[in-house]
Amino acid sequence: MSRIVKGMFDVMPKDEEKWRQVQWWRFVESTARDVAERFRFQEVRTPLVEYTELFERGVGNTTDIVEKEMYTFTDRAGRSISLRPEGTAGIVRSFVGHKVYAQPQPTKWFYMGPMYRYERQQIGRYRQFHQLGVEAFGSFDPALDAEVIALGMQFFEELGLKGVQVEINNVGDPESRARYFEALIAYFEPYKEELAEDAQNRLYRNPMRILDSKDPRTKEIAKGAPSILDYLSEESLANLEAVKQYLDILGVNYVQNDRLVRGLDYYTQIAFEYMVDIPGAQASTIGGGGRYNGLVQEVGGPDMPGVGFGIGLERVLLALEEQQVAVPEPGRLDCYMITFDQATKRKSMQLLAELRRAGLSAERDYLDRKMKAQMKVADREQARFVAILGEDELAQNLIQVKNMETGTQVAVPFDQLVTYIQTEKGR
Amino acid sequence: MSRIVKGMFDVMPKDEEKWRQVQWWRFVESTARDVAERFRFQEVRTPLVEYTELFERGVGNTTDIVEKEMYTFTDRAGRSISLRPEGTAGIVRSFVGHKVYAQPQPTKWFYMGPMYRYERQQIGRYRQFHQLGVEAFGSFDPALDAEVIALGMQFFEELGLKGVQVEINNVGDPESRARYFEALIAYFEPYKEELAEDAQNRLYRNPMRILDSKDPRTKEIAKGAPSILDYLSEESLANLEAVKQYLDILGVNYVQNDRLVRGLDYYTQIAFEYMVDIPGAQASTIGGGGRYNGLVQEVGGPDMPGVGFGIGLERVLLALEEQQVAVPEPGRLDCYMITFDQATKRKSMQLLAELRRAGLSAERDYLDRKMKAQMKVADREQARFVAILGEDELAQNLIQVKNMETGTQVAVPFDQLVTYIQTEKGR
Repeated sequence: MSRIVKGMFDVMPKDEEKWRQVQWWRFVESTARDVAERFRFQEVRTPLVEYTELFERGVGNTTDIVEKEMYTFTDRAGRSISLRPEGTAGIVRSFVGHKVYAQPQPTKWFYMGPMYRYERQQIGRYRQFHQLGVEAFGSFDPALDAEVIALGMQFFEELGLKGVQVEINNVGDPESRARYFEALIAYFEPYKEELAEDAQNRLYRNPMRILDSKDPRTKEIAKGAPSILDYLSEESLANLEAVKQYLDILGVNYVQNDRLVRGLDYYTQIAFEYMVDIPGAQASTIGGGGRYNGLVQEVGGPDMPGVGFGIGLERVLLALEEQQVAVPEPGRLDCYMITFDQATKRKSMQLLAELRRAGLSAERDYLDRKMKAQMKVADREQARFVAILGEDELAQNLIQVKNMETGTQVAVPFDQLVTYIQTEKGR
Repeated sequence: MSRIVKGMFDVMPKDEEKWRQVQWWRFVESTARDVAERFRFQEVRTPLVEYTELFERGVGNTTDIVEKEMYTFTDRAGRSISLRPEGTAGIVRSFVGHKVYAQPQPTKWFYMGPMYRYERQQIGRYRQFHQLGVEAFGSFDPALDAEVIALGMQFFEELGLKGVQVEINNVGDPESRARYFEALIAYFEPYKEELAEDAQNRLYRNPMRILDSKDPRTKEIAKGAPSILDYLSEESLANLEAVKQYLDILGVNYVQNDRLVRGLDYYTQIAFEYMVDIPGAQASTIGGGGRYNGLVQEVGGPDMPGVGFGIGLERVLLALEEQQVAVPEPGRLDCYMITFDQATKRKSMQLLAELRRAGLSAERDYLDRKMKAQMKVADREQARFVAILGEDELAQNLIQVKNMETGTQVAVPFDQLVTYIQTEKGR
């Protein structure tokens, strides 16, 4: 009864694993919002479920995600719907559905939230996981590719995450890619029996994905495969050079990797990944993205380009914990009020309400604890001030306020309590 | 392809319906976090899916929610899982699963996020909807009931929502309720044929829900039904009086309503609803809650009390829009940079990066627009400063910065651009 769904986790105020603590999530999220908005990306929120056909078309039928990993079900009206396995398809659906393509371009959006994939559980991989994504529609300018990549790097920098590297490639336009596919098939065919099973399955459907195989023998064979660089059009090569030049100007730490492919079918031209070491995790990829110039049209919109990334927040948080990055502590309790009997408890309600209304956090006892036990709670909560409301004080319309840092204690009239604590706190 | 799932909506930077704009959501969410934390409730996040049996046990098998409205499906391992139709069951599951009951009490938590119910669409009701919820475990103190109620009212007050009223009732302990059930059955039985179908269905299972019927004839019959107040134990009556007394001290605008019932089975003792007029919406309820003293045990924990509420954020937002409440505008663009050719575009990347790194928002053109068109974009974005980077300026390591409010224009050396804009913005 009290079991969480397999592969999922709670985010709590306290947890032995720091990355699962709520203040860690808040830090990552507020940093993401702040950075994205300085780059003038605006937040968009799409539902967590979409009609299944959107992902079949938008993510691609031959991908592992759509073939094996989606949480798909039939709603009560008989339509197939799925929990979103990634964020881009829904964003493109909203871009097309709201006819945002008809407004001045480019459109620069970001999103954050949970995604769902039915995967084997491993460190840093969960069945409900979270992504920060950005998407920019309506421009082919390589400066926009570079800005998207730089935005991610700025996010990592402001989190305090060290050692992130970008790998970049150009996966070609559809024509170059068709030529490259043929070359790859010709290269891999003689080794067919030696390839891993999933690589054999992909040989004729999407041979580029074989370059991404984790199987040792397949990896070895793939080392000799032709490079996409030899099949790219001049335009694609120039585009890659332009993005690299911009990344140089921006001081982004990148390497070119002509074997880089992404797990989603929709990428064209620039593709990239953010890598950082997470001990214990199988992969060092914490995010990736690229151009998807055909996707808006695929989803029913006009022929309009797009570029974006998705960053896995669980992996970012794990890497932050691993690197022992300092995360802002949750706010301390301003005032703990010690009460004794019915009359003082009643009065305390009014005083607590006044403090809270004035923007201060305030708390009291709800378990009829003795004074000593109440003091212990105040200590545990690291209260800045402890306010003692006894029978005598109540009779005199006063409350004893102790500053827990300086140790000084002052009797304060009820109607001056808020001002007193505000002033003392501000010192 | 570009259709959103029926009954769901996107939250966008702009929308003809203001309540769907992202800055409205952000305002409501940040206010909620701020208020909850002053009351010392801490944020918890549970997954959006749980095993179906949790809701069957935790929400109740006889509820509409579990019977008719859940999105339930079987995962690839054959287990029945459901999208959460409400927030409390998952929170209790995490409270029990992490053994938080063994820590010092009370535990005060809040959550915010999407919930899913397959309902007929109507104004203010969506199939993906959002709730703010708070839950306090571990104390029977009626002061805690009053504080939970007051927290909701403080949230509405700080949003600027006017005219919210609380209705309050005591729905009894299990023994009082069993006696009251008998009395209700005895009263309704002679009218059985006249009752609405759902009321007939509930007559022997949960006759209190008949008091909540929307059917006109059923409502009329229900007017003569006995009052729960005549069946409550002395303890329950005293509890109701104590909560009312605290609400009086807190200045909460409430009325007692002995016909108030809630749609969930788990409530015991205090139940309440927040009401405000939303023209066009069928119900004026924007939230509700109460005590659920048996729920922790039901989910596999010890016998430990709880009290909480859930507030529907769509309805709150609709009411805010209806009342024409002013919501903070999104941040303005600090600097739009006008570029001309490859060389100035390249240099602009570096300057934009410096501005953004320094905490300023900055933007440029990605569509090779002419200067005049770029100026138009800067206007539309309400840029505070427009920085013009022409060939001549580039040659002299300068940029022309125009303050769009004062109209003054100054040539600023590249290495002073950040400082100049920061200083001018701060004036």
